[in-house]
Amino acid sequence: MSRTVLIVYAHPEPTSLTRQFVAATEQALAGQGHTVLQSDLYGMGWKAIFDERDFPSRVNRKRLAYIEESGHAYTTNQQTGDVAAEQRKLLAADAVILQFPLWWFGMPAILKGWIDRVYAYGFAYGYKGEGNRYRYGDGILKGKRALLSVMVGGPATDYSPRGINGPLEELLFPITHGALFFPGMEVLPTHAVYGTGNLPEAAADKELAAWCERLEHIFDEPPIPFRRQNSGQYRQNILADHIAEGQTGLAVHIDD
Amino acid sequence: MSRTVLIVYAHPEPTSLTRQFVAATEQALAGQGHTVLQSDLYGMGWKAIFDERDFPSRVNRKRLAYIEESGHAYTTNQQTGDVAAEQRKLLAADAVILQFPLWWFGMPAILKGWIDRVYAYGFAYGYKGEGNRYRYGDGILKGKRALLSVMVGGPATDYSPRGINGPLEELLFPITHGALFFPGMEVLPTHAVYGTGNLPEAAADKELAAWCERLEHIFDEPPIPFRRQNSGQYRQNILADHIAEGQTGLAVHIDD
Repeated sequence: MSRTVLIVYAHPEPTSLTRQFVAATEQALAGQGHTVLQSDLYGMGWKAIFDERDFPSRVNRKRLAYIEESGHAYTTNQQTGDVAAEQRKLLAADAVILQFPLWWFGMPAILKGWIDRVYAYGFAYGYKGEGNRYRYGDGILKGKRALLSVMVGGPATDYSPRGINGPLEELLFPITHGALFFPGMEVLPTHAVYGTGNLPEAAADKELAAWCERLEHIFDEPPIPFRRQNSGQYRQNILADHIAEGQTGLAVHIDD
Repeated sequence: MSRTVLIVYAHPEPTSLTRQFVAATEQALAGQGHTVLQSDLYGMGWKAIFDERDFPSRVNRKRLAYIEESGHAYTTNQQTGDVAAEQRKLLAADAVILQFPLWWFGMPAILKGWIDRVYAYGFAYGYKGEGNRYRYGDGILKGKRALLSVMVGGPATDYSPRGINGPLEELLFPITHGALFFPGMEVLPTHAVYGTGNLPEAAADKELAAWCERLEHIFDEPPIPFRRQNSGQYRQNILADHIAEGQTGLAVHIDD
């Protein structure tokens, strides 16, 4: 079955490992008969900073209140063209892949700025004007899949369950749970390549091959079992006492 | 004793709660006799995107390798003026306060871009050309203190120990541990104000007063007891078996 996949990526150097992964992704998915959409954030000169220029027509010219202006721009079709175009790509996609180098344990600023600006009020949050009713497994992007493909400079051990940096998947929780699952997408386990600061060509080729292999299954592999807000497991947005009893921390939101 | 405090903040609206907090911070610290340095990222037109323009003199004009160019620019004093100025402010500061609204469970892109660009190789990582030898409690910013002052739109319950968003301090771990403790700073517990989307003026005033009260103690309150890399608690960057035995996750890196 042919699907549409959006790749959003953040590296300006065409020969970088990130860009090699992007090229491999495009080729592998096209080879499977999928349609590939791309957002080359550096190449597009993506505006990273969310500011008053995002709201050409203001509700309130005197005071910039982001949520109010974002909701107004979105519902009245007065967003900037670049933001509206990215939202259309998201809506057209069956799966979304974010490919980026891990910088200071998160996204490069240009990619964070893609989230900040594209995730409008009424779209990614405040869906249907209903506050937080639709989120975490429900929302405008429900039914789609998402996946992070991350190039990590340091070694895998530093990101292992007791590694000094913290486990990679927990460091990325604000993105996987907070930015992808939040508006409704099913999120697959992160695909990381480690030691990218110094990866021999043969090792890179092996990593690229493993990634292409994985791409054959992105529409049927099981997602991270994040608990859905509207599944009955939360009481007023707090995990019910009998679930993961006595435990706290990010991991309680995963139904293992 | 008079000290120097750097406030780095990220909100363009002068009447926003973030900016009210910035103004209160400046006033309270000046009132205590401290010297206050400021980085108003929106006001400065801070360049968020880390790209080839950060390296006016390149080691390799053909291929952009960030770590290599960053290290070269830093060690040869060929960084851009804006980045060098921020590094000087960090070095001059006894404490650093980052004040920002929480956007998608992290920093606004403009602030992430401050980290991405200012945290050069040789400065915040690769200190003294020694790879990862100096990090997590050791490094160029050792002896300084740091603190996040965050404006959170949602209610506190959603960020409580079993709240649906995840506990705030774990969501911020990539910043507190990964960006502040990493180059050596002692990090104080995050100061959050919740429900900022809809905060009555009286409640805001109360929050501002509580913050100013806290500012009287930032040089003597106990920091988050993150475990130091070079404390003997890690073996090859993995937490020693006998510490937090059998546990995994971000919290094992805190010595409670």
